[in-house]
Amino acid sequence: MKPMNERLVHMPRSGIREIMDVVEAMSADVTRLEVGQPHFPTPDHITRAAFDAAQNGFTRYTPNHGLAEVRASIATKISHDYPALEPTADNLVLTVGGVYALALVVIAFVRPGHRIMIPDPGWPNYTLQAITANATPLYYPLHQENRFRPDIAELERLVTSDTDLLVVNSPSNPTGTVLNVDDLEALLRFAHDHDLRVVSDEVYDKVVYEGEHVPLASLDTEGRVITVNSFSKTYSMTGWRLGYLLADPRTCQELTKLSEALISCPSSVSQKAAEAAITGPQDSVADMVDYYRGNRDLAVRTLADGGARFVTPHGSFYVFIDIDGTGLDSSRFARALLEAERVAVAPGRTFGPSGSSFIRASFCTSRHEVERGVAGIVRFLTSLRSHPDRRPARGVDHRS
Amino acid sequence: MKPMNERLVHMPRSGIREIMDVVEAMSADVTRLEVGQPHFPTPDHITRAAFDAAQNGFTRYTPNHGLAEVRASIATKISHDYPALEPTADNLVLTVGGVYALALVVIAFVRPGHRIMIPDPGWPNYTLQAITANATPLYYPLHQENRFRPDIAELERLVTSDTDLLVVNSPSNPTGTVLNVDDLEALLRFAHDHDLRVVSDEVYDKVVYEGEHVPLASLDTEGRVITVNSFSKTYSMTGWRLGYLLADPRTCQELTKLSEALISCPSSVSQKAAEAAITGPQDSVADMVDYYRGNRDLAVRTLADGGARFVTPHGSFYVFIDIDGTGLDSSRFARALLEAERVAVAPGRTFGPSGSSFIRASFCTSRHEVERGVAGIVRFLTSLRSHPDRRPARGVDHRS
Repeated sequence: MKPMNERLVHMPRSGIREIMDVVEAMSADVTRLEVGQPHFPTPDHITRAAFDAAQNGFTRYTPNHGLAEVRASIATKISHDYPALEPTADNLVLTVGGVYALALVVIAFVRPGHRIMIPDPGWPNYTLQAITANATPLYYPLHQENRFRPDIAELERLVTSDTDLLVVNSPSNPTGTVLNVDDLEALLRFAHDHDLRVVSDEVYDKVVYEGEHVPLASLDTEGRVITVNSFSKTYSMTGWRLGYLLADPRTCQELTKLSEALISCPSSVSQKAAEAAITGPQDSVADMVDYYRGNRDLAVRTLADGGARFVTPHGSFYVFIDIDGTGLDSSRFARALLEAERVAVAPGRTFGPSGSSFIRASFCTSRHEVERGVAGIVRFLTSLRSHPDRRPARGVDHRS
Repeated sequence: MKPMNERLVHMPRSGIREIMDVVEAMSADVTRLEVGQPHFPTPDHITRAAFDAAQNGFTRYTPNHGLAEVRASIATKISHDYPALEPTADNLVLTVGGVYALALVVIAFVRPGHRIMIPDPGWPNYTLQAITANATPLYYPLHQENRFRPDIAELERLVTSDTDLLVVNSPSNPTGTVLNVDDLEALLRFAHDHDLRVVSDEVYDKVVYEGEHVPLASLDTEGRVITVNSFSKTYSMTGWRLGYLLADPRTCQELTKLSEALISCPSSVSQKAAEAAITGPQDSVADMVDYYRGNRDLAVRTLADGGARFVTPHGSFYVFIDIDGTGLDSSRFARALLEAERVAVAPGRTFGPSGSSFIRASFCTSRHEVERGVAGIVRFLTSLRSHPDRRPARGVDHRS
C-alpha cells in the first residue's frame, strides 16, 4: 500500500509532547513546567457569553474568515491597543488558534522546496509547518550572549535566493525576549533587502513585564508583515482554539480561500467567546499578567540564587535555562530531572538546533508549582555541579 | 514582494460561496437552497453539556488527537451502529469538522505533483485540497444515466501510476446517491489493484431514506480505507466544527503529528459537545431525518410533477437537477433563477467538470422554504422550456 509522504513520516514530534507522554505515564505527582497552559480557567463572563450565543443560534457555519461582528470587534480592539495600526474587519481572518494562522501563511507563501527563516531557538511548530509545506527550515540563531536578539549580519550570511518567508516572534517562546524598535526595524530592512514576506507571531503581546510590545506591522510601510495573534494566552482560552491573522485585504481574501479548503471556518461558539473576551472587562488580563510577573520574579530569584545561568524573560511566560556543562543534553537532562525531582520541563533541543544545552521552564502555572518546580531545577543543577567530572553551571547572564 | 504560491492564487472559490455573496448583497427575501446548513439548532442538551464542561475546566489544550474519553465514546457509538467495525479510541483522531479530516489525509498521502481521484460531481473541497497539496485532481465521472454510481471500467481507463488516493463519498453530496455493497466492493478491488489509499467521506451516513449505509471500512480487509465523519449534519452542529477520522492506529499517530503542526487540537468545548451528542438521547437525529425525508418527498414530487429531470436522492439532503437544454450553463442558470424567482441554488459546475448542466438544491431548510424554493425552480424551468429556441427539460429519470 502506498505509504504516507516521507517528509511527514520523518517529521519529529514536539519534544514537549514527548515529555508530556512520559509525565502522564508516571504514577506520582509531577510538577509540570513543560507546557504553556495558563493556570487560570477562562474568565466566566466569556464562557457565559459563548453559551448564550450558542443558545441563540450561533451553532451554524460562519463565513470562512469569521463573523463580521467578531472581526469588527477585534479591529476596534487592535486600534485601541496600538493606535499606529488601524485595521478594519477586512484586515482579519479568524483562525483555529495562532498555530493555524501561521500554517495558512506558511502553506500560502512558501513554495515547495524553498526556504523559511525560523528563529533558533523558536517554537517547534514553525519547523513542523515548514516540513508540512515541503519547505526547508533555515534557522537563524539567537545567541544567549546577545540576550537572544537577532544578529542581522548572521541572517545576511544565511539567507538564500529561494527564501520566501521570515518568521519573527516577540515576545519570544521560549526565550522571553521582547524585541525593541531597533531590532524590529533591522529585521524589516533585512526583509525588504531580500524581498521576503514576514510573519510576526505576537501571541504573547499582552504578556510583557519590562519595556513594551511594538507590533512589527506598525513599522511596516510596505504591507510586508502578516501578524498572527490568538486569544489563548491573553484570555486563558487555549482550549477554545481561536486566533487570527492581520494582513492587507487582498492577502486576507486569498488566505480565506485557503482556509475554506482546510477547515471551512473556526468554531462559531469560540468566535462569540472571543468577541466577549475582546469587548468585555479586561481586568482579568491585567490580573493574570500580574500573577505571571510574580511567578517570574520568584523563578528568576530562585534561579539566580542557585547560580543558574539564564536571561531574565521580559515577556511571555517561559525561562530558557542554560544547562551547558552539566554533561547532559537537553533530552537526557529533562528525563533525569523528571526522575530525580519529579519536575517536568521542555528539552531545549525541541526549539531548534541551538537549544541542546537549554531547558525551557514555563511559569504560567500556580505560584506553588513554580516555587516547587524551580527549586527542583536548582537542586538538580547543583547536584550535577557537585559531581566531580562535570563543569559547573554558572550564574552570569541573568542580570539587567 | 514575493507573491503567494501561484496554485493558491488560481484556486477557484467554491461556487456555493459565490452565490452566497450575491444573495447576501440582495435586499429582498431570498429562499436559500444553496447551502447544506441544517434547519435545526443544535439540540439543547448538547449545548448545555458543552457549557457545563467549559465551566468545569474543559477550556484547556487537549491531546492533539482529542480527549481520550470523547474518542472512546465515539468508538463505542461506531461499534454500536456498525458491528462490523470495532474501533477503539486509538483508531480515532478528532478534527475541525469532516473537511479538516479530509485535508489531513490529502496532505499526508498525496505526493506533490501526484494525482488524487475525485468523484465528478463531488464536493468542491476535494479539488481545493488537492490544489493545496500541490496535487492534480483526476475526476472520475458519475453519470446521471447510471444513477451517479461509479463505472469501474471508466476509473480503470483514468487511473495513472502516480495516483495516490481515491476519494469515495456515499451518501453523496451533491447527488444523494447511496452506494450499495457491490459498488463499494468494486471500488475496493479497484483500489487494491492500483495500490491506492482510499478516503471514504461518510458525513451523511445517518441521513439515508432508502436502503442502508454500508461503511466502506467494513468491507476493507487490508486497512486501506480511512473514514471521515462529522457531527455537523447528524446533530446539526455545523458551527461547532467537530469531526473525526477513523483509521489504523499507526495512521492515526502520523495524522495526529500532522494535526499538531496545523491546529494543535480541535476545540475542547466542541469535543465535549460531541461527546454529549454521541452519548445522549438520539431521538433528535431520527426526528431531523424524518423531517428531511418529508422535505425530500415534497421536493421530488414537485420536481416530477413539473417535468424536471433528476435522480431521486436516497441519502444526504440534496437533489441534483438536470438543466441541460435550458440554454444556460449552471452559473448563469443559478444567477437567472435568483433574479427571476429569488431562489438560491448551487451551480453544478462547482462540483466538477460534469456538473455544468446541473444545479444542486438543498432540502435541509424549513418545509416552507423547500416548498417555495422548489416551486420557483420548476416555474423557472417551465418558463425556459416555453421559450421557443430552447429544448425542454424532460422528466424521465426520477422514477424508481
